[in-house]
Amino acid sequence: MTKPDLSSVYRDYTACLNRQDWPKPEGFVAAHVQYNDREIGLPAYRKMPERDFYAIPDLHFNVQLLISGAPCIAARLSFACSPKGEFLGLAVNGKKVFFTENVFYKFREEKITAVWPLIDKAAVEAQACPGAHDGNR
Amino acid sequence: MTKPDLSSVYRDYTACLNRQDWPKPEGFVAAHVQYNDREIGLPAYRKMPERDFYAIPDLHFNVQLLISGAPCIAARLSFACSPKGEFLGLAVNGKKVFFTENVFYKFREEKITAVWPLIDKAAVEAQACPGAHDGNR
Repeated sequence: MTKPDLSSVYRDYTACLNRQDWPKPEGFVAAHVQYNDREIGLPAYRKMPERDFYAIPDLHFNVQLLISGAPCIAARLSFACSPKGEFLGLAVNGKKVFFTENVFYKFREEKITAVWPLIDKAAVEAQACPGAHDGNR
Repeated sequence: MTKPDLSSVYRDYTACLNRQDWPKPEGFVAAHVQYNDREIGLPAYRKMPERDFYAIPDLHFNVQLLISGAPCIAARLSFACSPKGEFLGLAVNGKKVFFTENVFYKFREEKITAVWPLIDKAAVEAQACPGAHDGNR
């Protein structure tokens, strides 16, 4: 049996998200998917990108780095987008912000079973609230 | 020429950090190392962990996930530690906090040439300032 090419699976997944090709992306996700070590299940998971695209109409996933080591992958994503209102608890209100996300995924049979995302909130904060202390190291 | 085992190099690097075996960790870092796409160079880079261990005496790097795909690796790190004062711009003041970091490294000849770290500031905020809106997605 050949190992699945998870990089290729992940690129197909993000391409579906960027096309907002609902509900195709859910075909990439396992029924009992975990998010930050908590089982949220497919119905809750599939609502997340739909909600994100509603709140951020110009959202686009740009894969900057992708490292595959079955059964996991790690992706560094970059975003240049304009959240309509509040984003990560910050009043962005349509301002264009640039930020990154470092995210790990675990797969089983080419489906995502776990996700551990981290978004650069400090970068968004520095752009949305430039007077505030950004707390970067 | 065999490919370097970057996972093994990285585990040696974090073991040195955890032993606070200064200045051995700098042997793992290239002279013109970049941090978040900005060249900071080795002298500035080597000060970071020393400063972190001074501010967080019980700091310990726990590697939860490690994916290697030369020339890069991605690590998911977890921490359970007690920053003495302010950490990430938050008044932690010795409280024990639990958080994670997703970080990418690029290597050249087994030396770190670039780092892109993201720390879960929202998790620290929720523990240090439990009344505040944590801004998690």
